[in-house]
Amino acid sequence: MKKEKKNKPSKELPLGFVDRQEKELLVRDFIISNIKEIMIKYGFRNLETPSFEYSESIGKFLPDKERPDEGIFSLQDEKKWLSLRYDLTAPLARYVAKNFLEIPKPFKRYQLGTVWRNEKPGPGRFREFLQFDADFVGTKSLQADAELCVMISEILEKCGLNKSEYIIKISSRKITENLFKKIKIDSSEQKFTVLRALDKIDRLGWESVKQLLSKGRKDKSGDFTKGANLSLSNIETIEKELKKKLPETEDLLEILKIFNDYNFSNFEFDPSIIRGLEYYTGPIFEVSLKFEVKNNKGQVIQFGSIGGGGRYDDLVNNFGNYDAPATGISIGLDRLVYALMQKKEFKIKQSRPVVICVFDKKLMKEYIKLLTIFREAGISAEIYPGNGKLKKQMEYSNKIKSPAAILFGEDEIKSGKPTLRDLNSGNEKSVTIEEIVNEIKKII
Amino acid sequence: MKKEKKNKPSKELPLGFVDRQEKELLVRDFIISNIKEIMIKYGFRNLETPSFEYSESIGKFLPDKERPDEGIFSLQDEKKWLSLRYDLTAPLARYVAKNFLEIPKPFKRYQLGTVWRNEKPGPGRFREFLQFDADFVGTKSLQADAELCVMISEILEKCGLNKSEYIIKISSRKITENLFKKIKIDSSEQKFTVLRALDKIDRLGWESVKQLLSKGRKDKSGDFTKGANLSLSNIETIEKELKKKLPETEDLLEILKIFNDYNFSNFEFDPSIIRGLEYYTGPIFEVSLKFEVKNNKGQVIQFGSIGGGGRYDDLVNNFGNYDAPATGISIGLDRLVYALMQKKEFKIKQSRPVVICVFDKKLMKEYIKLLTIFREAGISAEIYPGNGKLKKQMEYSNKIKSPAAILFGEDEIKSGKPTLRDLNSGNEKSVTIEEIVNEIKKII
Repeated sequence: MKKEKKNKPSKELPLGFVDRQEKELLVRDFIISNIKEIMIKYGFRNLETPSFEYSESIGKFLPDKERPDEGIFSLQDEKKWLSLRYDLTAPLARYVAKNFLEIPKPFKRYQLGTVWRNEKPGPGRFREFLQFDADFVGTKSLQADAELCVMISEILEKCGLNKSEYIIKISSRKITENLFKKIKIDSSEQKFTVLRALDKIDRLGWESVKQLLSKGRKDKSGDFTKGANLSLSNIETIEKELKKKLPETEDLLEILKIFNDYNFSNFEFDPSIIRGLEYYTGPIFEVSLKFEVKNNKGQVIQFGSIGGGGRYDDLVNNFGNYDAPATGISIGLDRLVYALMQKKEFKIKQSRPVVICVFDKKLMKEYIKLLTIFREAGISAEIYPGNGKLKKQMEYSNKIKSPAAILFGEDEIKSGKPTLRDLNSGNEKSVTIEEIVNEIKKII
Repeated sequence: MKKEKKNKPSKELPLGFVDRQEKELLVRDFIISNIKEIMIKYGFRNLETPSFEYSESIGKFLPDKERPDEGIFSLQDEKKWLSLRYDLTAPLARYVAKNFLEIPKPFKRYQLGTVWRNEKPGPGRFREFLQFDADFVGTKSLQADAELCVMISEILEKCGLNKSEYIIKISSRKITENLFKKIKIDSSEQKFTVLRALDKIDRLGWESVKQLLSKGRKDKSGDFTKGANLSLSNIETIEKELKKKLPETEDLLEILKIFNDYNFSNFEFDPSIIRGLEYYTGPIFEVSLKFEVKNNKGQVIQFGSIGGGGRYDDLVNNFGNYDAPATGISIGLDRLVYALMQKKEFKIKQSRPVVICVFDKKLMKEYIKLLTIFREAGISAEIYPGNGKLKKQMEYSNKIKSPAAILFGEDEIKSGKPTLRDLNSGNEKSVTIEEIVNEIKKII
């Protein structure tokens, strides 16, 4: 055996990827069904695009320019490059361009799907995650943008949060666009360097961001990030603008009016909201949780947003000349699940099978009869699936948190009365086959 | 515009990838919930492993040796190679090895997930598909293998098939293993060349397969596949064995006995069943549909199996010395959905929103009031999400197959009675706001 040791493959996962257990998956299922129900009620329909797209089709709109492929998982096919989608919005734009003549306009779709980011792995930084998106394509109406905020709000409350536990932060790319005009930045590359720096206000604070806007910044690890080389007075202009308390741009003023018509008030204007993706053109929003979230070491962490979105009027036009202004929202499902599991004790039942113990393989036919009776009654049940003595079978039953074990040996088969052991209380009861379903239902 | 033309990215999808529409997704959701319900009833619990694994961890067990990376999507990370999973079984083996001390033994898990195969693209050959798997790990009991066949059968019937519309074909790798002993093949490479040829009996027929077992075969496109170079007498021995009508290996004889105890008879022994994956060691099974399936050109196609599986007693041992004999089944969800949609008219409702038409943006507050009433009553509804005159709004409503439009202009607002237009019949009705929810519920 020792000789083979070095040939054994790794049992570990690549950094940034995780196995997820049933408890989390059940909460996720519950949240997904809430989101679906509400998105359908708001008039969105389901669509599924594939995980791979031609790299050129989804572009490179990620903030993380430092990484190879700019944060995207890509590989070369026969002739062209393919990429795993990094969000659900860029593929939607491709879908709309491809099917422009057939789709209703405006087009409202929801989509649930995995997205991948080839980011620098680190604790709690995942490289694949589930997103749940809703988008309006083909409308300039700010009613659409406002509805997305109202909808996400209804979703969070349906999932059990109250109004003091979350807030929708809103801003607009018009604000930064106006700033760029003011301080005379017009190359889109330089604009994005500035936006990328501003996107870090939340995480790094203004002082570090100002370094990034100026000459550059050295982080804790010693890595140096080049700055945007703005003048001090321009940086001051930016800071002043992004610390304003009230919106002045026309789009946000109109959205506020619509919010009022909806009696929706659980939002705040926050011009320091930037959103990482490059394609936004108008109102942007971010959903923040306001309760404490702890990491797996029990430390309170800066949780950030569990979703957000905004208007992207030009994205479909990358494919040609389409009249497809759009706005959308994206929910980071894994993060939402993580936060909600800390906040709420979800009463979601994990169904555990009743275990029929095997005394003798020759009696299998009798066990199968019982098993069939249980399953036909809708009771999760199994015959002990391994080989081993009764002690091992009981250990197994306890390990899987089975509610009950059935003891059905030769004597009991003769008398026609299996023993039902309640694995929570340890109580045993001898019951007839006619009674057994009802007796089990009392304890599961 | 013309100048930009050549810079526009492709609107197309890479071959082997597709967009899926709501109708298909609704049927899929229905099937998924059936499968989940039954797998839970059979005592399986949910697990989710990530889409990427270290390439070394999931090995290369695919039949398609001719393709680069042997059919797997792989890319290099910082130091190591990562691969997208090509099935859910190899990652399960990695999970079991990693968590061997903590998991119950036997371990029963179900998993739904996308898998990727970097196969030669072609019409109807997808490079990503959804699989739904259930596995027992840590048991040699053939009760487990038998239960998987009984379970898949219950699943198909729950999805609406009757016994004449599907069959479970069973065989065992013990048969081919015995054959290899008889004809003195012991290199695993040569064994797999033979298995790969035999796996094509169903698709190519015996004559072509015999060429593959002998010198080789040229296909329609002119491509030549090298043969296994077996002698004619050995090929004859194989053919004779794989045309037998009754099983002789011990494992299959025991499974037949268990099937009998379950009163399960919707199976047939078919020694020409091979299963493509290399890791099987014992009983193998395949689920075949027996009704005609047509492609999108209306031609009847050879549909093949919609799932299958088998015993893989040694897979976990690639990671070390574990006592983890295992067996599992995999359902090809997309194929099952495709076939069932041809067979059955699923009465699954696509919820379409009632459309509140916009006469004047100034009246938005009134529209939002109505909208809120509808949604609070659980009715899918929306305010027309675009900009445009009434004619355009009605075109939109018809296009999205909305059941009803609400006409609420200045006069109607004054009288407090919106007009409800039934978009199926074209009938209009003036109703009070108190009545409107009930009136809508009559027509949706």
